Amino acid sequence: MSDERATDPVLHLIRERVSTERFDPQRDLSEQQIRELIEDATCAPSSFNIQHWRFVVVRRPADKELLKAAAYGQSVVTEAAVTFIVLGDTRGEEKLPEIMQVAVERGGMPQGKADAWVRMARKIYADERIARDEAIRSCSLAAMVMMLSAAARGWTTCALSGFDSEQVRRGFDIDERYEPVMLLCAGHPAGPDERPKPRLSVDDVLAFDRGRSF
Amino acid sequence: MSDERATDPVLHLIRERVSTERFDPQRDLSEQQIRELIEDATCAPSSFNIQHWRFVVVRRPADKELLKAAAYGQSVVTEAAVTFIVLGDTRGEEKLPEIMQVAVERGGMPQGKADAWVRMARKIYADERIARDEAIRSCSLAAMVMMLSAAARGWTTCALSGFDSEQVRRGFDIDERYEPVMLLCAGHPAGPDERPKPRLSVDDVLAFDRGRSF
Repeated sequence: MSDERATDPVLHLIRERVSTERFDPQRDLSEQQIRELIEDATCAPSSFNIQHWRFVVVRRPADKELLKAAAYGQSVVTEAAVTFIVLGDTRGEEKLPEIMQVAVERGGMPQGKADAWVRMARKIYADERIARDEAIRSCSLAAMVMMLSAAARGWTTCALSGFDSEQVRRGFDIDERYEPVMLLCAGHPAGPDERPKPRLSVDDVLAFDRGRSF
Repeated sequence: MSDERATDPVLHLIRERVSTERFDPQRDLSEQQIRELIEDATCAPSSFNIQHWRFVVVRRPADKELLKAAAYGQSVVTEAAVTFIVLGDTRGEEKLPEIMQVAVERGGMPQGKADAWVRMARKIYADERIARDEAIRSCSLAAMVMMLSAAARGWTTCALSGFDSEQVRRGFDIDERYEPVMLLCAGHPAGPDERPKPRLSVDDVLAFDRGRSF
């Protein structure tokens, strides 16, 4: 291990973070804490800076039960302090003129470049599959930031992709333009989690120059 | 801003990281540095711990030109020290018995639970769309870890989703089971990047308890 990996707090956290299924049921997250976590999530990058991510935070006991049922009974949903339904806006490019205007006014982006981006994004995301893929990508990037941000704050998380999207939509009044990409349970840990984190090795997943059978 | 956000190095990095288009063309990344970055990427979570991520690292000038052409001429691809083609294994669950065996032997997972996971994953990912979505999610989580790991090391990155998948596959001998999810350019920055990072506000993207029109 290089010196940098041994001592850098970011690299240390990346390695130590684990998904948990054991939350402390006695400790909530405050609205302020939730808002700070979401603000961190918005620091993720996204294509054209569209920021496809939207979040519905589920925190009331009855709502947790509703969400647990939509997540095939996975009990982390009721045990976590909160669960975020991470939604991807499949028509995110519609908000781009407004987003670009801020970039022009505050970020010094030339108006011509901003207009060109808007036209290009409209053309690309007219293809529904491409738009949906992009929403999944952006939301996953944001979710990873949330998992690391939460870990840095001493909280823990568990991401779930196993749930019935339609049931989530119906239960939580989610418009069809938003694709439920992930559920992210968050809260204080029940205790230290020292489970090993078995992973494929670098040689198992990395190829130089050309693809291969991994 | 809370104290914790002002002082925690992880939270600081999350906020300061920016995507760049300006790489120092004089500075490479070594094979060792590339391997460390990939090892960090593998610390991301994935459904059932399938670890759908695979990486082809493009570093030779002629290969960079080939990749740039597949990326609609985006010049970051030739300017970055390396570009990772982040591939999602759309049949990732086929490797799960092997992955689970390690979890049983080293991680203390009961054999019965491991076997049940393998059966469940096979059933879920028999649906090609679900399998592909999962691969996109996992790879995006890993890519976000790479972007933060790179930033912590003083490097910079630029993620691209605009490229012709088929051209990437053909140019780099990539089997059809692997979905090109993202290109991730990485290298040393050309200089400090102090561009503002305009984002939607927390109120723009967060809803409590139920969905809404964002």
